[in-house]
Amino acid sequence: MDIQALAKAHPDHWSKACAIRTLAMDAIHAANSGHSGMPMGMADVATVLFEKHLKFDASAPDWPDRDRFILSAGHGSMLLYALLHLTGYEDMTLDQVKNFRQMGAITAGHPEYGHAKGIETTTGPLGQGIANAVGFAMAEEIQRAQYGKKIVDHYTYVIAGDGCLMEGVSQEAIGLAGKHELSKLIVFWDNNGITIDGKVEIADKTDQLKRFEASGWSVYECDGHDPEDIDRVIVAAKGSKTPTLIACKTHIGLGSSAQDTPKAHGALTDAQLIADTKAAYGWLHAPFEIPAGVKAAWEAIGSRGAEERAAWEARLAALSGTKQAEFARIYAGDAPKKLSATIKALKKQISDEAPKVATRKSSEMVLEVINPIMSETVGGSADLTGSNNTKTGDLGVFDPENRAGRYVYYGIREHGMAAAMNGLALHGGVRPYGGTFLCFTDYARGSIRLSALMGIPVTYVMTHDSIGLGEDGPTHQPVEHVAMLRATPNMMVFRPADTIETAEAWEIALTAKTTPSVLALSRQGLPTVRLEHKVKNLTAQGAYVLAEAEGKRQAILLATGSEVEIAMKARDLLQAEGIGTRVVSMPCWELFAQQDASYRKRVLPAGPVRVGIEAGVRFGWDQWLLGERGREAKAGFVGMEGFGASAPANELYTHFGITAEAVAEKVKALL
Amino acid sequence: MDIQALAKAHPDHWSKACAIRTLAMDAIHAANSGHSGMPMGMADVATVLFEKHLKFDASAPDWPDRDRFILSAGHGSMLLYALLHLTGYEDMTLDQVKNFRQMGAITAGHPEYGHAKGIETTTGPLGQGIANAVGFAMAEEIQRAQYGKKIVDHYTYVIAGDGCLMEGVSQEAIGLAGKHELSKLIVFWDNNGITIDGKVEIADKTDQLKRFEASGWSVYECDGHDPEDIDRVIVAAKGSKTPTLIACKTHIGLGSSAQDTPKAHGALTDAQLIADTKAAYGWLHAPFEIPAGVKAAWEAIGSRGAEERAAWEARLAALSGTKQAEFARIYAGDAPKKLSATIKALKKQISDEAPKVATRKSSEMVLEVINPIMSETVGGSADLTGSNNTKTGDLGVFDPENRAGRYVYYGIREHGMAAAMNGLALHGGVRPYGGTFLCFTDYARGSIRLSALMGIPVTYVMTHDSIGLGEDGPTHQPVEHVAMLRATPNMMVFRPADTIETAEAWEIALTAKTTPSVLALSRQGLPTVRLEHKVKNLTAQGAYVLAEAEGKRQAILLATGSEVEIAMKARDLLQAEGIGTRVVSMPCWELFAQQDASYRKRVLPAGPVRVGIEAGVRFGWDQWLLGERGREAKAGFVGMEGFGASAPANELYTHFGITAEAVAEKVKALL
Repeated sequence: MDIQALAKAHPDHWSKACAIRTLAMDAIHAANSGHSGMPMGMADVATVLFEKHLKFDASAPDWPDRDRFILSAGHGSMLLYALLHLTGYEDMTLDQVKNFRQMGAITAGHPEYGHAKGIETTTGPLGQGIANAVGFAMAEEIQRAQYGKKIVDHYTYVIAGDGCLMEGVSQEAIGLAGKHELSKLIVFWDNNGITIDGKVEIADKTDQLKRFEASGWSVYECDGHDPEDIDRVIVAAKGSKTPTLIACKTHIGLGSSAQDTPKAHGALTDAQLIADTKAAYGWLHAPFEIPAGVKAAWEAIGSRGAEERAAWEARLAALSGTKQAEFARIYAGDAPKKLSATIKALKKQISDEAPKVATRKSSEMVLEVINPIMSETVGGSADLTGSNNTKTGDLGVFDPENRAGRYVYYGIREHGMAAAMNGLALHGGVRPYGGTFLCFTDYARGSIRLSALMGIPVTYVMTHDSIGLGEDGPTHQPVEHVAMLRATPNMMVFRPADTIETAEAWEIALTAKTTPSVLALSRQGLPTVRLEHKVKNLTAQGAYVLAEAEGKRQAILLATGSEVEIAMKARDLLQAEGIGTRVVSMPCWELFAQQDASYRKRVLPAGPVRVGIEAGVRFGWDQWLLGERGREAKAGFVGMEGFGASAPANELYTHFGITAEAVAEKVKALL
Repeated sequence: MDIQALAKAHPDHWSKACAIRTLAMDAIHAANSGHSGMPMGMADVATVLFEKHLKFDASAPDWPDRDRFILSAGHGSMLLYALLHLTGYEDMTLDQVKNFRQMGAITAGHPEYGHAKGIETTTGPLGQGIANAVGFAMAEEIQRAQYGKKIVDHYTYVIAGDGCLMEGVSQEAIGLAGKHELSKLIVFWDNNGITIDGKVEIADKTDQLKRFEASGWSVYECDGHDPEDIDRVIVAAKGSKTPTLIACKTHIGLGSSAQDTPKAHGALTDAQLIADTKAAYGWLHAPFEIPAGVKAAWEAIGSRGAEERAAWEARLAALSGTKQAEFARIYAGDAPKKLSATIKALKKQISDEAPKVATRKSSEMVLEVINPIMSETVGGSADLTGSNNTKTGDLGVFDPENRAGRYVYYGIREHGMAAAMNGLALHGGVRPYGGTFLCFTDYARGSIRLSALMGIPVTYVMTHDSIGLGEDGPTHQPVEHVAMLRATPNMMVFRPADTIETAEAWEIALTAKTTPSVLALSRQGLPTVRLEHKVKNLTAQGAYVLAEAEGKRQAILLATGSEVEIAMKARDLLQAEGIGTRVVSMPCWELFAQQDASYRKRVLPAGPVRVGIEAGVRFGWDQWLLGERGREAKAGFVGMEGFGASAPANELYTHFGITAEAVAEKVKALL
């Protein structure tokens, strides 16, 4: 690579790009860890993008109509931090850059959403960013259909590496974007030919251009170090009628002695190597020093969008008051005022009618009243629409012919769906929900965890939540999944017992701002167990006394979801024998754990025998059965000890001993 | 579709294929559930494959050199059960077919490995079969290199549906197979254009042929109902030097009124529809009745390979005695006799030297002595070889130029790696292990669960197992993952404290026959905590007393992995204050739970305060802290309450309060 020739050909560009490169080198040197090669390799592409194309205003990072820039190759975080610092994002001070990867800094090892302005999504786990981007681009299309091109008209740009493209989730994203002709999605592929283990070719020889073309993308190639060539392809991509891949031929660790080697992927911390590289760049400045002229040029880029933003604000102000208020509301993530009354009315009706329905159907009943009053909901399913009951009548289907559609056929792509939902939520103005079978949270775990880590209100509608699924057998029957989701921090896992609890769970999910929700819903019909209408959202307490003991309280049955019915029947059996039995419904452990100790103690007083009932593993249950002032010798559990089986659901419940009789026996044995 | 023309053109073929179709219809009718459309649509392809190409002998289902037939589209299980019944697999009786999806039958809703002979792998979760198949084909290549073409020379055939191809894991499989030029892998794509939600095009418009070609596959198309055309492409595929995709244009639910509609995907149970379809087929037989001539024709197919098998057995018998014994041993899944002594010698050496090393490095030390004595190990990593320490000196790299290589660069494909490892293990004769960061078990969950459900001894080498990973931050720091894996049935989760426990864990993993293992290993250096050599494998007990209390036993510290060192330091602090403290190392909960109650009681006696220490969530710990005769009021936990952060590891431990001082304080507060 003839560095000198690059520097000479485009000196202004070169100095700006080298400011990124040297900040990355200096920060990684200071941290003694990080990933140098990618920022050094992709600095030219990023410089051209920010200088000539990206619509943004560093002084207003939350401007809804900004272009989104997503660093899918999150290990190259210093590229992003350097860009944010150079263009003048207020919080991204030089001190923050100097404290890269240190305790309390906003410059974490990988970009963490919420740490610094300008980080659109948390990346690092590979492939997530490109798959989030599909959601961003869908959100843009949907809102453009709702608010018009004057209010919503922006691009989503992604930098992805070889790792992103090898991860399977990228294929799901590519397929989805291609189908939906998301023309404002533009992906730069950092085609440097190097991974951690060596050259890409030791593990892959895929023709990526052909692969993307196969799914309906436009593809371009450029020299990733030639600013004119980079500009040329971005111009072309912006005019494309399909999503675009730009393969940028780059040199990882450009200009260093480690260039084009796996060593460059990681941290280049050798002082001499850094000095030699800077010398090759012609960069004669102290560590972390950016010459005033270069900084000024970057800051001019950072404020380039201010005028455009002002014009946009004027256009927004010209909308009707109602439209403006709605726009503000959905971007604030606030639920409509009507929501509470709507849920209450449904609860009242259900208490009166006491239907026996599967909670997946209950969820549909809730969505039927919610979707019409919440323009921000975007639903979908990974090819199980009729089973997840996620599609309501008023939602049009999102596709190239109907951008106003709010229902997405995600295809058989659980991971891609979850990642896209993260993108929809992160874009702002959208509240996504999507369904599959609970068992297939396995496929989507990579993105579900990121919903929790980022603290974004995505709702996962996970039906067929136990052996109650029946004949499809153990591959489709979750037994450990509720436990796994509960083990995940910052996640609300709801397992409602009936339509009323389902409505309450939805209300909580739809008003959450910093927590994703999982609704674990039954395939099989369940009776309404809460027959007396309560205005208060009892599910918000996490657990509550559903049925009090008659006579002396000798036992407490703790159950969730479809097993609450069994607990109620067991209570009947026990009460008939004079054993006073309380039933506690526990639709959401996380919320119960957040209640004050006195409430928890009222619900779970010390003394009585406790038996937990759930058609899943016991793992995690002991905190309620043995803890919370329980007594170990007097606690039991009725549930699953291993995987399920293929048979009709009722036979499975009997086979695995999850019956009212078994619960009653367990209580009596403990007494 | 002109059914009559098909029947007339190839009457013998037609009757055989219709035997499959009608058995599927009858079984699904009897079960009142299942998936009719796929068996009806793919019966012709399967018939030609079994009749003319598949090397198998129904009387010897475990013949090592048989061709493998994998039904990746597992919902079409009746296709497989019909084939097994018709060709004469002894266990697949007509009664089993009649009991499709019923309790105790071997004919589960989806094919379950181990239920019936001829089921090569458990499928149903989409995309798994095609990704397993990559492992099968790799195993074949490796063993052919080891034993020669006379002993190992077979194909791996797969039937995959649109769902399999939309799942991201399929892309990882396609890329891996293409790179490795797995020419004996042949995939039939059931190109029927229909998914559950509607036409494929509502969610995808990918040109699949182009997509596969982009990764180096050969591609063919055929009319999936024309036996001559099907035969033509199979012949071509068998001669290919790359893996092959055959796109079979088929009609889902062929000949029924639901043909070519999503309705056909599910269970066609309407009696009239079934009668009409059979009439259209010209099939005038009672339910479950197969005319003797048709059955005889199928049984002839089932015994077609007997002669070839006999010839193979003669060739095997002509090998040297050593070779034969080795072949028998690896197919029996037995560890070599030397293994035990080798591990003991390493343990002795380590006890003497007491090195301070990361357990990922410990794992490498074990592999260095194991791989040379176990020809069946096949290692690999998802592009983190140098971090997972999975590659030892003697393992060559598997690729098209070196089929004897036993190390696989899986690329950035955790899910594809796990699925391929399942395939390697299922093929027989191979014991696979592979690495990534523990956090990225998230990406591989779909396949990890199937290792456990199938009960196959895959070993997951999961390094960087806590916040001890340091600066890479919360996206890379597992906090809930150990809990999630422990919640999974039939999985051994090891978190060894030092090199000795790591060696013991490996010994258990390498002798396991029906259980996968996860080794959660540290990034950071850990001291040797077991300084006195014990011949016995203490890890096999799951938990054991590492250090006894001096004086009156007032506290028990329970810890795993990197936190055992902290427990030992806390013990020093407490003993210095005269508080007798026992340390229990718990490298494997599952094995501890399997010990008899008296042993468990000796390790965890009632009375003393208990504090658990693990740099992960408390979820699941209460079974040991509060249960097992513990006392709730006297138990505590030192660990993580939420996600981690980006900073140097030692600072993170201090920040999150996982220190010896914090443990000692907790004990004193409880006393």
